Amino acid sequence: MEIINIFYYLAVILIFAKSFGLLARKLGLPQVAGMVIAGVIIGLLGKFHDDDSVILSTIFMKPNAAEKEVLNAFSQVGVVLILFSSGLETNLDDLKKSGLAATVIALFGVLVPMALGTLGTLLFMNGYSDFSREKLLNAIFTGTILAATSVGITVETLKELGKLNSKVGQTIVSAAVIDDVIGIIALSIVTSLKGGDFSQIGITLLKAAGFFAFSIGLGILLRMYFKWEEHKFPHKRRTSIYAFGMCFLFAFCAEKFFGIAAITGAYMAGIMLSGLEDTNFVDRKVVVSGYMIFSPIFFSYIGISADFSGLSWSYLLFGICFVALGILGKIVGCGLAAKPFGFKNKESVTIGCGMIARGEVALAVYSSGSALMMQEGAAGRVDPLVATIMLIVISSILCPILLKLLFKEKPTENGENGDDNRTLPAQP
Amino acid sequence: MEIINIFYYLAVILIFAKSFGLLARKLGLPQVAGMVIAGVIIGLLGKFHDDDSVILSTIFMKPNAAEKEVLNAFSQVGVVLILFSSGLETNLDDLKKSGLAATVIALFGVLVPMALGTLGTLLFMNGYSDFSREKLLNAIFTGTILAATSVGITVETLKELGKLNSKVGQTIVSAAVIDDVIGIIALSIVTSLKGGDFSQIGITLLKAAGFFAFSIGLGILLRMYFKWEEHKFPHKRRTSIYAFGMCFLFAFCAEKFFGIAAITGAYMAGIMLSGLEDTNFVDRKVVVSGYMIFSPIFFSYIGISADFSGLSWSYLLFGICFVALGILGKIVGCGLAAKPFGFKNKESVTIGCGMIARGEVALAVYSSGSALMMQEGAAGRVDPLVATIMLIVISSILCPILLKLLFKEKPTENGENGDDNRTLPAQP
Repeated sequence: MEIINIFYYLAVILIFAKSFGLLARKLGLPQVAGMVIAGVIIGLLGKFHDDDSVILSTIFMKPNAAEKEVLNAFSQVGVVLILFSSGLETNLDDLKKSGLAATVIALFGVLVPMALGTLGTLLFMNGYSDFSREKLLNAIFTGTILAATSVGITVETLKELGKLNSKVGQTIVSAAVIDDVIGIIALSIVTSLKGGDFSQIGITLLKAAGFFAFSIGLGILLRMYFKWEEHKFPHKRRTSIYAFGMCFLFAFCAEKFFGIAAITGAYMAGIMLSGLEDTNFVDRKVVVSGYMIFSPIFFSYIGISADFSGLSWSYLLFGICFVALGILGKIVGCGLAAKPFGFKNKESVTIGCGMIARGEVALAVYSSGSALMMQEGAAGRVDPLVATIMLIVISSILCPILLKLLFKEKPTENGENGDDNRTLPAQP
Repeated sequence: MEIINIFYYLAVILIFAKSFGLLARKLGLPQVAGMVIAGVIIGLLGKFHDDDSVILSTIFMKPNAAEKEVLNAFSQVGVVLILFSSGLETNLDDLKKSGLAATVIALFGVLVPMALGTLGTLLFMNGYSDFSREKLLNAIFTGTILAATSVGITVETLKELGKLNSKVGQTIVSAAVIDDVIGIIALSIVTSLKGGDFSQIGITLLKAAGFFAFSIGLGILLRMYFKWEEHKFPHKRRTSIYAFGMCFLFAFCAEKFFGIAAITGAYMAGIMLSGLEDTNFVDRKVVVSGYMIFSPIFFSYIGISADFSGLSWSYLLFGICFVALGILGKIVGCGLAAKPFGFKNKESVTIGCGMIARGEVALAVYSSGSALMMQEGAAGRVDPLVATIMLIVISSILCPILLKLLFKEKPTENGENGDDNRTLPAQP
């Protein structure tokens, strides 16, 4: 790899992403949708470039494998920083209040799309008339890709709309964080089904519990350290740098030792540092580092990594159904689960729509499971990669559009849409 | 590569680098020296780690090749941002005034260490009694590694000491930028000597001239755009993001099309955007992104990438001489060249000491030349890689220490050491 090319990719992505973001905003769409579209366009332009002429290689984008790893790393730092910032900005008291609602919403938001995805995939595999255990497992695994919400895009959209700290916004973010955990537990259960070894399920659940015990335990110690530090050296660079270190450490530990997504670790790190005197000071640094370079790369990279080369008409049909089931499953599952917790119809739909976005976790689930699928043999196999990428791209574009429409609708009879900013009611 | 490991390395580097930086400051040393030492320690700890146990792999640091590429990319973005910021903070009028002095200082700062390095290497190759054209070429090439100053560490140190905008500080930065260009021209000449094809020299000089014409031409156009933008949308995120894009684009174009180091491109981008109304606004974003994540990685990475495994006693002796010649060559060459331009003795020595730091450009020169050396046959070959790394580590540690000592010495008879902040005299 020539390191110098990275500068070219960074320049192209930043300039494209911001320009398309601004264009999207001008068209009444959220900036993040524009950034994802910028990524798709950059990715498609790269496809045309198949020779080594200097001019072409600089107009179009075609990173090699090593360069993709670097861009992917920037993109992963981007999503981790988004979740860290969202954790820092979390109001713990609100999270506690929305805890039960968020958990139930997350659970149904995982189970309904998983079930729909499994049934739909079985249909496409001709699995009802020609059933086999392999087909069922592959279908369940494909359904599991639909489980985990990617909260990054939603959080950015909610921030842009000024609704992040609203009751609906907080519920979406809490549910999305919890559904990530549930989704990864679901994946672990599905993969452990393969050998018929049910002891793995217990270990997986134990690991998830272990992660929260670990992050809260270590988090309390580190919080005490930061409290001492902000008292002794208020508003110092060291505070933000150590906070960054803690964010990355939690992200690493979550995935490495507990099998929990890195972004969940970053979110927990943010929560453990929320509400301190220097929290806003640290958050501003995180936000600047994020929007200057990492978040535009994260959003564009979702579009850039899309590969549309394996497309056929029947696959496209499968993909469209997969996307539709994934989106409807979240809206129906989360929306119905939200209703009993005192949300009005429109608010319930908004929560469902806020949960439709899929991102890097869906791809992570795909890659964790695809090795398993290969072993099960190619019989009746439907490779869900392109469908997953379609889901990520379409849901990432659709989610902010739907949220914006729902939040920007005429005020309800309750008056001004500040209604949504009311404080949380007690749990039912 | 597991992307998740990157988070571990980022966390370890940030926490170690900042802690050693603070420790260094407590000991009266500049923070950057602490950060380089942190890198050496991280690198050495990694050496002990030769098994795959989870605990060891998380206590020690041993990135694989792909992970090193990612860390290297972060580190390169770090040095580019340092130079971009330094360009933004440049006072163009001052640079114009110090232009001739800086050029002459840079020229002698390249020629004297090159000559000393060549003679020293010949001596170690036993080249005086057993002369061959290959040995001479290899020696000249080894000497060329000593040419280019790495201004990153010096700029950070000068900033820390509050001397970046002093007459001496500006002269060092200008000379270091110019000496980078001269150093790369020198490398091109040396490599072109091999085939006896002197037409390459003309092309190299043409390319350097072309780069400055390009960067000034495009820079003026972009400057007009930024002026329009800051007028229409003052203090907007887009301004900083587009400025980042321009920085990376200039860095890329400099190296890709003109064979000039990327950091020179970033510096030129900074200069072309200096003195605008939003320049400080952009610079603050660059500084935050830099110190939060990229600069600590840059400084530590110099230490981390050091590999002391190929050491023998005779090689160590060569290395020590190489380092000594490299450091003395800069102090003598630059110091003597500075004297006629109205600098006092102590100021001349300070300029020389400010130029001793070597960094990524020295390694780039090494790697550009090492393929050539292999072709010349192994006869009398001294691989200068470890010596180059020794030079980078020692000069990076020594440069800030010397600068700090020289700036912090008792006021001269001229009175307060604010003397150094006087405006520039007219050229002699």
